[in-house]
Amino acid sequence: MSTTLQNDQFRLAARPVGLPRPDGWQRTSEPVRAIVDGEVVVKTLYLSLDPAMRGWMNEGKSYIRPVAIGEVMRAGGVGVVVASKSPRFAVGDHVAGGLGVQTYWTGAADDKSANLTKIGARMAPLTTWLNTLGMPGMTAYFGLLEVGQPKAGETVVVSGAAGAVGQTVGQVAKHLGCRVVGIAGGQDKCDFVVKELGFDACIDYKNGDVREGLKQHCPNGVDVYFDNVGGDILDTVLMRINMKARIVICGAISQYNNTSAVKGPANYLSLLVNRARMEGIVVFDYAARYQEGVAALAKWMQEGTFKSREDVVEGFDKFHDALLMLFEGKNFGKLVLKVAEA
Amino acid sequence: MSTTLQNDQFRLAARPVGLPRPDGWQRTSEPVRAIVDGEVVVKTLYLSLDPAMRGWMNEGKSYIRPVAIGEVMRAGGVGVVVASKSPRFAVGDHVAGGLGVQTYWTGAADDKSANLTKIGARMAPLTTWLNTLGMPGMTAYFGLLEVGQPKAGETVVVSGAAGAVGQTVGQVAKHLGCRVVGIAGGQDKCDFVVKELGFDACIDYKNGDVREGLKQHCPNGVDVYFDNVGGDILDTVLMRINMKARIVICGAISQYNNTSAVKGPANYLSLLVNRARMEGIVVFDYAARYQEGVAALAKWMQEGTFKSREDVVEGFDKFHDALLMLFEGKNFGKLVLKVAEA
Repeated sequence: MSTTLQNDQFRLAARPVGLPRPDGWQRTSEPVRAIVDGEVVVKTLYLSLDPAMRGWMNEGKSYIRPVAIGEVMRAGGVGVVVASKSPRFAVGDHVAGGLGVQTYWTGAADDKSANLTKIGARMAPLTTWLNTLGMPGMTAYFGLLEVGQPKAGETVVVSGAAGAVGQTVGQVAKHLGCRVVGIAGGQDKCDFVVKELGFDACIDYKNGDVREGLKQHCPNGVDVYFDNVGGDILDTVLMRINMKARIVICGAISQYNNTSAVKGPANYLSLLVNRARMEGIVVFDYAARYQEGVAALAKWMQEGTFKSREDVVEGFDKFHDALLMLFEGKNFGKLVLKVAEA
Repeated sequence: MSTTLQNDQFRLAARPVGLPRPDGWQRTSEPVRAIVDGEVVVKTLYLSLDPAMRGWMNEGKSYIRPVAIGEVMRAGGVGVVVASKSPRFAVGDHVAGGLGVQTYWTGAADDKSANLTKIGARMAPLTTWLNTLGMPGMTAYFGLLEVGQPKAGETVVVSGAAGAVGQTVGQVAKHLGCRVVGIAGGQDKCDFVVKELGFDACIDYKNGDVREGLKQHCPNGVDVYFDNVGGDILDTVLMRINMKARIVICGAISQYNNTSAVKGPANYLSLLVNRARMEGIVVFDYAARYQEGVAALAKWMQEGTFKSREDVVEGFDKFHDALLMLFEGKNFGKLVLKVAEA
């Protein structure tokens, strides 16, 4: 391989207070080093931008260690192998894994934290492997099935409905025979999930009253709530849950950039009144079953009964601005940064 | 029967804002009416005073309908049958059920809301039937076993540890082979649950730091938290839970008299980080299995490995003052109002 390849990087320079700031990143560039036996070089094609990234920038115990100051920012991505001294991957293979916010990833083919896996570029577009067939899809699939446990005929509500996780939650629930009501910001997102994805209804929280919307669209109450947002919306849904309801705590994007304390769900005693359950989900727990999830979702996609929508921002340099789109609700579908041509 | 019996009552006169006030009750007195076939008259001996009573005084949907304005205040109690035209109960039988805050209960022997059941006065003292062998005991037993699902060797934390529910939760958990740490207000209560009831440790939240106490006494983290109090203590425990922890939401006495909104658990995202579960329990769901619970607890009591502590206040007129003791944490053990001599 040529050693003239240059690896550009975004490193975490400072832990943000509130929204990430442009000066919280350190831009670096270094030559891609020569590889030894067992190693590969992956050229980054697309990076996944996820709300969870905000949490990784904080100090303190979480479900994964924080990104260290000075470390390349953690991110999932898909890329193409451009050099290989490993039997696991050949040059030209497409892979998904924890590539980080950099233009080249170099390391052992079996590196645990990168967890590279070969992906079928013919099976689905590359960006789909960061969405429905990637972490967000797996989060949605296993979170809904294993924690939400919806039954046919039940009402499933999902917030962040047009986002990466929400779009899959809703479509899986429809496939299971549930009534599905989304909550999203803006009429265009609501139109999308109802008209394109087949949700039964969608509540536009930016231009309508969520409480009234739930009354109207969930006449039989809420059996499963898949929460990606937290805050007031979680509290509002808590007032409409049914007996033995299941609330899947997947994220709380409304709270990630708080500079004061997280707003806890003031209506949590509805769990008592309704003998209901609130439970967290982290996708890594289902790693051994990803193939099962990918197979189910890919089958529906091939049958044409399941859609995957990505919002692609072009240009590695746009990383910071693109990340902020998540917290402003500006992305429409799974947010992806295009780093290089496939 | 003599019709000169006089039934004294506390009726709800106004819905309280914050703590119940003396003028929120209407005192009434009426002659005990003659009974018809199928009816009984029960003389109230002891009334159960419970945190849940505060919730019943509020308007609005809950797990049970609110007490109406002008209605006799709802309360569980034990009494003795003093007149009977029902084959179910004979004069002299001791019964437990929803007698209400009145000196005599009159109605059909099979009245659904009173749900009278014969109790064995020889099996355990009458007051125990309002504690370990009554609703608090059943709440603790089924809430811990069915929702908390503790396994031997796990750490169980219970707040309101010296209270009616807490004392049973902790002792059942000890019988299951768990490490048990109580949280209670005051050194005397802490001494009681450790020295008398056999808890492994107790944190005095009034004179110590709960966070430090949990660090010290739960070196392996918290697997099950049985919450009777809500508020800051719930938040503090949330920061110490283990992976796959179970939080039983049984009550939130710290929040019942709030005049502003309930304080939601700001640290609820610990459920996500730890893939943990928070679930409500209402004892009535286990009504069909009360005999199972009574049998288990009574057996341990007879073996001398289980204690039941009641705090008895004497005098029907003391009802209001005694009720307030609950919210001031002044009761020591299950709070019971003695209405008449057995």
